[in-house]
Amino acid sequence: MKIKVTQEKLSRALNNVSRIAIGKVTLPILNNVLIRVDNKKVSLITTNLDMAIIDFLPVSSSEDGVITVPAKLLAEFVSNLPKGETITISSSGTKVTISTGQYSSTINGAVADDFPELPEINNKKAVTYKMGVDDFKTSIGQVIIATSNDLTRPALTGVYFNTNDDHLAIAATDGYRLAEKKLIDKVKSEVKAIVPASSLQEVLRSITDDIEEVEISFNEDLVRFRLGEVEIISKLIDASFPDYPKLIPKDCNIKVDLNREELIRVTKLAALFARSVGGSIICETVTSDTFSVKSIANEFGENDSKIKTKVTTAGKINLNSRFLLDALNSLEEPVITFQFSDRIAPVLLTNKKNNQYTHIVMPLSS
Amino acid sequence: MKIKVTQEKLSRALNNVSRIAIGKVTLPILNNVLIRVDNKKVSLITTNLDMAIIDFLPVSSSEDGVITVPAKLLAEFVSNLPKGETITISSSGTKVTISTGQYSSTINGAVADDFPELPEINNKKAVTYKMGVDDFKTSIGQVIIATSNDLTRPALTGVYFNTNDDHLAIAATDGYRLAEKKLIDKVKSEVKAIVPASSLQEVLRSITDDIEEVEISFNEDLVRFRLGEVEIISKLIDASFPDYPKLIPKDCNIKVDLNREELIRVTKLAALFARSVGGSIICETVTSDTFSVKSIANEFGENDSKIKTKVTTAGKINLNSRFLLDALNSLEEPVITFQFSDRIAPVLLTNKKNNQYTHIVMPLSS
Repeated sequence: MKIKVTQEKLSRALNNVSRIAIGKVTLPILNNVLIRVDNKKVSLITTNLDMAIIDFLPVSSSEDGVITVPAKLLAEFVSNLPKGETITISSSGTKVTISTGQYSSTINGAVADDFPELPEINNKKAVTYKMGVDDFKTSIGQVIIATSNDLTRPALTGVYFNTNDDHLAIAATDGYRLAEKKLIDKVKSEVKAIVPASSLQEVLRSITDDIEEVEISFNEDLVRFRLGEVEIISKLIDASFPDYPKLIPKDCNIKVDLNREELIRVTKLAALFARSVGGSIICETVTSDTFSVKSIANEFGENDSKIKTKVTTAGKINLNSRFLLDALNSLEEPVITFQFSDRIAPVLLTNKKNNQYTHIVMPLSS
Repeated sequence: MKIKVTQEKLSRALNNVSRIAIGKVTLPILNNVLIRVDNKKVSLITTNLDMAIIDFLPVSSSEDGVITVPAKLLAEFVSNLPKGETITISSSGTKVTISTGQYSSTINGAVADDFPELPEINNKKAVTYKMGVDDFKTSIGQVIIATSNDLTRPALTGVYFNTNDDHLAIAATDGYRLAEKKLIDKVKSEVKAIVPASSLQEVLRSITDDIEEVEISFNEDLVRFRLGEVEIISKLIDASFPDYPKLIPKDCNIKVDLNREELIRVTKLAALFARSVGGSIICETVTSDTFSVKSIANEFGENDSKIKTKVTTAGKINLNSRFLLDALNSLEEPVITFQFSDRIAPVLLTNKKNNQYTHIVMPLSS
């Protein structure tokens, strides 16, 4: 195995794939990156058994072969080499030599036979979608915040890709709040698949400025994201996602439009006083022109802020300030709509104009 | 007590003083900032018993009085208020009201009687130095890295301000390396004082762009740093500092000039392979033109890098790569001088031209 490649290209690819190379005590080879040169095509591959990252590396010259090398050590070594230089990596047995100019190192590698086999997606049977990468990145960010860390409820630790009517949507919920974003209109093929939040985080981290489009392919138990020269393949979560559309309130008694920045500010102020009461704050509509955000009086003191807006119906609801802030930070427009019916029904938060994104937050008991 | 002040001024001052307001379980009032208005002069004061930060706040109007308020809560509250607004803080009993426009909060304060008394420096008896703040900041940074965290050797946890011949120098050592910087030439009054590294960190954090000069005053057991409107008063460490000048080698057998950036790079590369051997790397001079940095072969592999330079005497020494990198990052010139005599004597690192800064690193046993 031998490749010649510029420091910049190699360093970028190694930094990308080495993130998930975290060896388990029982399987230390997962620390390694597999370097495969097959018919002049070079791929760098890492896996944590739940997912794999494959980076196809354009190189100036190569000889076929395959070897594995500690990924983080190689990535750090290459990132410290001078930019602009050409780096030669060659293997002899399990010894891997990296050299350039006055620098030369030998890293102890391991044979590729022990490296886990990678799952593959059959392109013919797969359902595939394509979308702009900026839109994808924003949308995943808006929904992933509502995923749960609770491994006893696996369905809630992922983002649910699902077709409904004729659009593809993504949704996530941790049982206390729910976020949904419509991704693509007028899709033809159907999908219902839960992608682990951890895999999506890696997809987001693999997006670089030069990438414009993401291709997403599903089969029964796998998903593949293609981003330029990078492929990320992940297992799907084998669980059933809640029938979430029925959780989204249709008609609310109380509906106010609020300046988003102003509501963020008053929520942060109230949250400071709400630390000793689990972040609980009180949102209240007062006819005919006031929306107030209060903290409950406690050892620290109390806080009351008012926002002017048109109010037709009076009402009051207790919310977790952190969940409200997460929702507000995911909304995009200067003016947002805050709706609820009573103290025990969820709050519905949407942009005033665009209806692609929906966020609901369950109330706290008062 | 009542003050009116702009959000920017109040927020800057509160963020500065609240850093050290960390209440101890036995003395929760240390969480608080003391707000004192005395004859239209407003001061914000916090202390952790080892040091105090005092910020003199220019305000537009005020009424005399004194109160203490949880410092971090007040700082975060004020920093979230809109910029450009005028904030009114007033106390009634232990209730402190902060208001501006549509925002109003009441924070539960505490009477000032329980706040610890602050140590004071008698200006007449004190020894005082003044210097440019940029030079001060750089110099403290170059020396503080060599302080120790070992509380059983208190003298080593501070920076030693000492006059020697006719200059003021600062020095620090953790027993494995030593850094010295000449601060001011031709001083008249003498001082020998160890300032806690933790207090100096706070002084560095209090430096803002608008400050040009620092005034440093010592008395027997205290030091005061004046930075514009801010005063930091700290206890000195009551211990005797090692007689360090005799630790600095005078004449070395081996002396090479090296490009600093290049030596940093090859040290970092060798350090990657040295993790399993406690960071130990081998520096070697080879006549007549090579300086090499190597890692010892181990489970990861091995590494050998060469730098071209003029070498008159061959020699070899084992060093801790982290200590060498710390020293190199504190040196400033493009070319530095690396000197040593044998495998058991310390390495002397200096800038090639300017001799104000001296760093020595003890060798590791090979």
